[in-house]
Amino acid sequence: MIVTEDRSAAGAETEYRIEHDTMGEVRVPKDALYAAQTQRAVDNFPISGKGLEPAQIVALARIKRAAAIANGDLGILDASVAQAVVAAADEIIAGDHHDMFPVDTYQTGSGTSSNMNMNEVLATLATRHLGSPVHPNDHVNASQSSNDVFPTSVHIAVTGALIEQLKPALAHLAEAFETKAELWKTAVKSGRTHLMDATPVTLGQEFGGFAAQIRYGIERIDAALPRVAEVPQGGTAVGTGINTPLGFPEKVIAEIAQSSGLPITEARNHFEAQANRDGLVEASGALRTIAVSLTKINNDIRWMGSGPNTGLAELHIPDLQPGSSIMPGKVNPVIPEAVLMVCARVIGNDATIAWAGASGAFELNVQIPVMGTALLESIRLLSNASTVLADKTVAGLEANLERAAALAGMSPSTVTPLNRLIGYEAAAKIAKHSVKKGITVREAVVDLGYVERGEVSEEALDQALDLLSMTHPGVAK
Amino acid sequence: MIVTEDRSAAGAETEYRIEHDTMGEVRVPKDALYAAQTQRAVDNFPISGKGLEPAQIVALARIKRAAAIANGDLGILDASVAQAVVAAADEIIAGDHHDMFPVDTYQTGSGTSSNMNMNEVLATLATRHLGSPVHPNDHVNASQSSNDVFPTSVHIAVTGALIEQLKPALAHLAEAFETKAELWKTAVKSGRTHLMDATPVTLGQEFGGFAAQIRYGIERIDAALPRVAEVPQGGTAVGTGINTPLGFPEKVIAEIAQSSGLPITEARNHFEAQANRDGLVEASGALRTIAVSLTKINNDIRWMGSGPNTGLAELHIPDLQPGSSIMPGKVNPVIPEAVLMVCARVIGNDATIAWAGASGAFELNVQIPVMGTALLESIRLLSNASTVLADKTVAGLEANLERAAALAGMSPSTVTPLNRLIGYEAAAKIAKHSVKKGITVREAVVDLGYVERGEVSEEALDQALDLLSMTHPGVAK
Amino acid sequence: MIVTEDRSAAGAETEYRIEHDTMGEVRVPKDALYAAQTQRAVDNFPISGKGLEPAQIVALARIKRAAAIANGDLGILDASVAQAVVAAADEIIAGDHHDMFPVDTYQTGSGTSSNMNMNEVLATLATRHLGSPVHPNDHVNASQSSNDVFPTSVHIAVTGALIEQLKPALAHLAEAFETKAELWKTAVKSGRTHLMDATPVTLGQEFGGFAAQIRYGIERIDAALPRVAEVPQGGTAVGTGINTPLGFPEKVIAEIAQSSGLPITEARNHFEAQANRDGLVEASGALRTIAVSLTKINNDIRWMGSGPNTGLAELHIPDLQPGSSIMPGKVNPVIPEAVLMVCARVIGNDATIAWAGASGAFELNVQIPVMGTALLESIRLLSNASTVLADKTVAGLEANLERAAALAGMSPSTVTPLNRLIGYEAAAKIAKHSVKKGITVREAVVDLGYVERGEVSEEALDQALDLLSMTHPGVAK
Amino acid sequence: MIVTEDRSAAGAETEYRIEHDTMGEVRVPKDALYAAQTQRAVDNFPISGKGLEPAQIVALARIKRAAAIANGDLGILDASVAQAVVAAADEIIAGDHHDMFPVDTYQTGSGTSSNMNMNEVLATLATRHLGSPVHPNDHVNASQSSNDVFPTSVHIAVTGALIEQLKPALAHLAEAFETKAELWKTAVKSGRTHLMDATPVTLGQEFGGFAAQIRYGIERIDAALPRVAEVPQGGTAVGTGINTPLGFPEKVIAEIAQSSGLPITEARNHFEAQANRDGLVEASGALRTIAVSLTKINNDIRWMGSGPNTGLAELHIPDLQPGSSIMPGKVNPVIPEAVLMVCARVIGNDATIAWAGASGAFELNVQIPVMGTALLESIRLLSNASTVLADKTVAGLEANLERAAALAGMSPSTVTPLNRLIGYEAAAKIAKHSVKKGITVREAVVDLGYVERGEVSEEALDQALDLLSMTHPGVAK
Repeated sequence: MIVTEDRSAAGAETEYRIEHDTMGEVRVPKDALYAAQTQRAVDNFPISGKGLEPAQIVALARIKRAAAIANGDLGILDASVAQAVVAAADEIIAGDHHDMFPVDTYQTGSGTSSNMNMNEVLATLATRHLGSPVHPNDHVNASQSSNDVFPTSVHIAVTGALIEQLKPALAHLAEAFETKAELWKTAVKSGRTHLMDATPVTLGQEFGGFAAQIRYGIERIDAALPRVAEVPQGGTAVGTGINTPLGFPEKVIAEIAQSSGLPITEARNHFEAQANRDGLVEASGALRTIAVSLTKINNDIRWMGSGPNTGLAELHIPDLQPGSSIMPGKVNPVIPEAVLMVCARVIGNDATIAWAGASGAFELNVQIPVMGTALLESIRLLSNASTVLADKTVAGLEANLERAAALAGMSPSTVTPLNRLIGYEAAAKIAKHSVKKGITVREAVVDLGYVERGEVSEEALDQALDLLSMTHPGVAK
Repeated sequence: MIVTEDRSAAGAETEYRIEHDTMGEVRVPKDALYAAQTQRAVDNFPISGKGLEPAQIVALARIKRAAAIANGDLGILDASVAQAVVAAADEIIAGDHHDMFPVDTYQTGSGTSSNMNMNEVLATLATRHLGSPVHPNDHVNASQSSNDVFPTSVHIAVTGALIEQLKPALAHLAEAFETKAELWKTAVKSGRTHLMDATPVTLGQEFGGFAAQIRYGIERIDAALPRVAEVPQGGTAVGTGINTPLGFPEKVIAEIAQSSGLPITEARNHFEAQANRDGLVEASGALRTIAVSLTKINNDIRWMGSGPNTGLAELHIPDLQPGSSIMPGKVNPVIPEAVLMVCARVIGNDATIAWAGASGAFELNVQIPVMGTALLESIRLLSNASTVLADKTVAGLEANLERAAALAGMSPSTVTPLNRLIGYEAAAKIAKHSVKKGITVREAVVDLGYVERGEVSEEALDQALDLLSMTHPGVAK
Repeated sequence: MIVTEDRSAAGAETEYRIEHDTMGEVRVPKDALYAAQTQRAVDNFPISGKGLEPAQIVALARIKRAAAIANGDLGILDASVAQAVVAAADEIIAGDHHDMFPVDTYQTGSGTSSNMNMNEVLATLATRHLGSPVHPNDHVNASQSSNDVFPTSVHIAVTGALIEQLKPALAHLAEAFETKAELWKTAVKSGRTHLMDATPVTLGQEFGGFAAQIRYGIERIDAALPRVAEVPQGGTAVGTGINTPLGFPEKVIAEIAQSSGLPITEARNHFEAQANRDGLVEASGALRTIAVSLTKINNDIRWMGSGPNTGLAELHIPDLQPGSSIMPGKVNPVIPEAVLMVCARVIGNDATIAWAGASGAFELNVQIPVMGTALLESIRLLSNASTVLADKTVAGLEANLERAAALAGMSPSTVTPLNRLIGYEAAAKIAKHSVKKGITVREAVVDLGYVERGEVSEEALDQALDLLSMTHPGVAK
Repeated sequence: MIVTEDRSAAGAETEYRIEHDTMGEVRVPKDALYAAQTQRAVDNFPISGKGLEPAQIVALARIKRAAAIANGDLGILDASVAQAVVAAADEIIAGDHHDMFPVDTYQTGSGTSSNMNMNEVLATLATRHLGSPVHPNDHVNASQSSNDVFPTSVHIAVTGALIEQLKPALAHLAEAFETKAELWKTAVKSGRTHLMDATPVTLGQEFGGFAAQIRYGIERIDAALPRVAEVPQGGTAVGTGINTPLGFPEKVIAEIAQSSGLPITEARNHFEAQANRDGLVEASGALRTIAVSLTKINNDIRWMGSGPNTGLAELHIPDLQPGSSIMPGKVNPVIPEAVLMVCARVIGNDATIAWAGASGAFELNVQIPVMGTALLESIRLLSNASTVLADKTVAGLEANLERAAALAGMSPSTVTPLNRLIGYEAAAKIAKHSVKKGITVREAVVDLGYVERGEVSEEALDQALDLLSMTHPGVAK
């Protein structure tokens, strides 16, 4: 018994036609653009009910298009056949026929079934354009192998999604933080280390730190990109380039780079590139670090927004929806929570990608589809989460400046500048005295006789205990 | 810019109606069964494009149904209102209206939006049944909170999926292995340790080991089930049961257990149950162990099937589809590869679940939706993968018995029984001699003069070197 | 260049003797109890500088002792040789000579080097006892293989450590929580969900929840134990029991169980048991769940102890040491932090164990040593962390009962009992009004005219808004 | 009951002296260089029995040395005091007194105890040098906080270990692979995809791929280094630089960079740098990718070395030690197995580091010690494993060239070049015919009449089926 997510799919009456491949005949839905091999895969892999990410389908089409052009130029394909394949691929790139890619992510580990799915759909479409038969293997797949095409499609899709989706979304989020950092530049609040009262910071300093974390996330993507953008195309079956004409990889990759606008490059070593997906593991590590950053940031925002009456209540998080089905009037930090769950998913996808990345043997890794799907999902989720966080939460944050400043003044760690005046051990006695008596640090200094004894002047005390001056360097003297 | 998977969704013209909730008015699609709060969530969380697993939607409906009955019995709801809610819930349980649950998994971490989605849909349906207004909070959600309903729905759905999907699928797979174990009970082959030639085993012993691994996987599920089947229902907002009538949790849980046939029990400690999802983390650990088992088994099968001419070639894996778009006639172990990718995903989902499980604070974990979705996905994938593996690969495996036996005889480790006759060090010399000369162990014994010198008799040698007798205990003397 | 942790080790002058094995001669330190194969391993694996956990060394000795007895009983060894090996093993079990086990954890994946290390040390010691040569392979290792001995030693050590260390430590921690739960049974405080003010709970309820989590941790260990306590001993090289006399595994395992007092059992399927370490993966999953529990608990304790002046300050965590080298008088929750880091390590060890557990092939997993070391480390760390947490933190926790109660009364979610009296939507208005005006919920009810209009009586209001009555079920009417 | 690894430690009689700190008096071993706060930490954290990695102790001393110089220059410390601290730090940097750092890794999460341990030891040593009291806080720790010192010490130690240990070890390993790649440049062997026979490659191509993987590992380290080498020093308590003189961070960091020769830089944003350890998470991701690479490479080597008689047997792995305690003469790939276990540990450490990295709150992450220890352990293990792999395995690998070539010729995928001559479908028929009949591809072409019918000439066939020409591009025509 196969468990499906979609209960409504059953029962529809479908009409079929007969197709064949090297293993024999197969029944295919009458109107399908695909043929026998796709249908075999549909039958063989009723596992998740979900196929490749759309970005990868487009990337596959880009490769086929570029390969047709290169094959035409190099005399492997007739110009008319090449043009027909290009026209067919353009339809997929434009977003058409995406429902014609029904093969599950959990298929053969090389992605051969999805490559053949693309070959078959393009052969059908190109045949229509050309008016005479275009063959999925001999024409559409000419000079290619699933073993170079499929991983290349993942790298192209990931490169595109990082550059076009995630980097702009992160930049947008960083800007949202920077706006708040500027706004709250001198808004004093209590620092907290070990969750305990520490010396003051400004809210702007904290938000500047958030912005920097996100900006460094962009740097992390950039640091990984050179090895993500390097593709195995041209290695064909095992990295040797068997069955490719000389000059093929250069041409096909230049064409992809040009038409996509992405910095795609040919593998420096085709055997490394054929057998391993280390570049994807590395990229996932960058995303994982971004998820770690977002986890910390969202937890801070949630705690600063905690309350309204029993928490820290330094920030007010925008109200987006009623928070509780039982507690009336409750409003919760729902976007930060959604973002935290995205981070948990990215952490899990990262574990999947590393596990799968280590599973290669000899000339092929056979867990490429799950790596591609997981990595593209992570990018999509992080992109959307960053956008939503910026627009629906950060932009609308309001600070409770009075409360923040009041709390800052209550921290016994404001005694710290006195180290220079009276030494660490005496300062510790003052801090403990203030907490025990429930008085301010200034009051404790006076109460313990330091002023009276002339050990500290009132002026020095005022200067040392100024909250804002504690938020930047410069020793109190 | 929000990135969607579905490019075809855009552009359709939708008509709207106006709904309201405690925060004001909201535009809702005219024919939607849900109302304001669902719509707010749809607008707030455009993140993954994918909502809860269907099993959880059904579980939510089961809770609402049982709660309506209990509320009716305990005088909280009028009998007619209760009956209307029951009738409404029955529609969802039957599989209807599942398209009316558009809320993303990445939503508020309590699942409040999905609970309200269910409350609103049932209120609409119940209103139709009753002919007068049924309120989503005051009636459908009576005596409940998202904070007990939503996690309870995850535990019910997971318990059901483990018992009804995964355990039968694993049992089916174990049977497939057991059939082969019986068939190949005396089929001698070389053992391999460290990938190096070892003493013989039978193919039946290996497949019996696979079957045992899977059977123990079922034991692992059973070991975790008591704490998965324990649900927080009745704790309402924070575990205290505020706003529930006395006797409510017992009644509602008994009703769920009875109607679902699942061994659902009330939390022994409602504060543990409210704040933590440790039972889900534990269950995921069991699934992770099953994924580890399946990884090892499928790697063994793939290697035994490697070849046909340059690998081990002890097994023939059924041909399901052409294996290569460039290498004609190649057939690959596609199902084992798909199963291995499922395992990689389960490993990742497990990391997500542990990460999310550790994120609770005080009376609530706020990463429940992603835990539920990931865990239910893992169960669904493992169930389908086990079924497909059993039916499309294990059932059709064919052994190359001659080759397996020949390889067994060639292993230099067949010298092992001679330890007892001539000692470990002399046996080591014989093994090395056989490898160096390319002769059998028996030939090496003779070649080195052991028989001639009378240190070992020919009979003792024959007895000691009998391959099948090496596959069970009993010291050669 | 090999990087060592220990810079002081270099330079000492060592005298050597010559030993030999089947591969030739080796220089061994003059006074070493071990011989050639141990020394080869020392030379081959200069990787971590750290060997097996002591618990595993003892377990290895237990197996050798039991095997000697069984071999003696079954006529494989002379009684005097068997007795000499027993006497030798008793020395190791008593804790002597542990410095004679220098083999790195990162060695051959079967642990053969450590098994031979034990064989060699025991042969040396037994030779001394007997006065004539005892051979490491032919005598000490008789009827055994590294492939059954080494994993069995891991399972014995883990079973012992779980039962004798971790379970008592967790029980001790649970008792510490239970003591506080009883003490603070009626100490009202604000519940918090989504970190936001919720309806009240008692501090005792929260600590009772912590206790239950830890008690369930013990259940999780018990649920995994049957498959951890099942050992491959008797399978020898590949699971077949080659070179064992009939009856050997039963005897040796009964002896181990009897002498250790541990519930060790023979593998139900020796091929499963030989090739896989799934039981360790499962056990690690249980530890991982405990780490998840401890993470949540310690975060709650840290937050309740946050302050003293700018945080929640509901608890005072015992002062154990000065908290800051710069902020005088600061005291931090240092034990909870140490425990949280232990949890992070357990999470990592768990990832190592699952990864290694999936790496088996055919008749052997070749990552057993790292699995054993990681799992035993996790158990040791969790045991010590639980003990320290109980004794140095939980036992000394003090509640700030007045502040906790005051905060509870300030939560706008105390409006919740009014749902039954005036409906969810009206209650939401009251809650929002109270927050906006900075008044209590009771004041807001009055302010909005509900009492005046007779919609709620003063008595009903008093009853509904009683904080302690909100901490248990029973609908306000 | 605390579980210790070291059973021999108990029982020694220790003499004590009395020390005090801001919390009171403490008994300290008479000859200890440390004082009260270290001793409190020893008493508080009896958890793992193991402290910081030596590289981090040296890095802490480097910071103290540089801070003393900067404090002297900026008038915060007297020149004589500064010089005394420098002299004291030089002793630690030289490797002395490392036994005076007994604080457990599992301590306060800021590493305050280890920072104070260093402050106390240096104060004792500096007092000896100076002849008058040097104070651990007021002098040694002047212008510093644990919160900037401790994480800075991790980043310095990690930067140093990456540059001085791991990068050279990886370069050494890459060279070992490159030597073999050159040696086996034209050694034809069968390619394998999906573990199934594919078109030929050369052994040199495979080893060149291994080398490239390792070289890219070095690039990955370089890509992460800028953010690892960026340190929070100067931020003191919360990132604001409170209690530092102007110019302090620039001076202290320049001094560290100069004296260590490492490219250490000041944090671009001190709030990001104070609160987060994202740079360590990122670096660990790079190490994780290297572990993934090494896993694949070592599995390939193990499989190529499998046999000698029942496996692939394309390579002979150097014999380093007897492989089995029961199977005489067996030799196993022990170094690759040790390396694979190192990889498993690195994967686990990486999970620990990400988990810990996400646990920060506000101005501090409180899981820094476990991050530092785990990351430095990963670097040390990978460095040693790479060196051992290069020297003890790769350098001594021998190829079985005849067998490799013979297997290459037997692969049915050698039919691939015929695609261009007769089309994919006809080629598939030939491949299947060859496997079925047990004949070569060439024989199958003839057998099926292609030559006879003139569809392929003998010459074209010879050219197309030349194995070596299949290992590079260029379409057969």
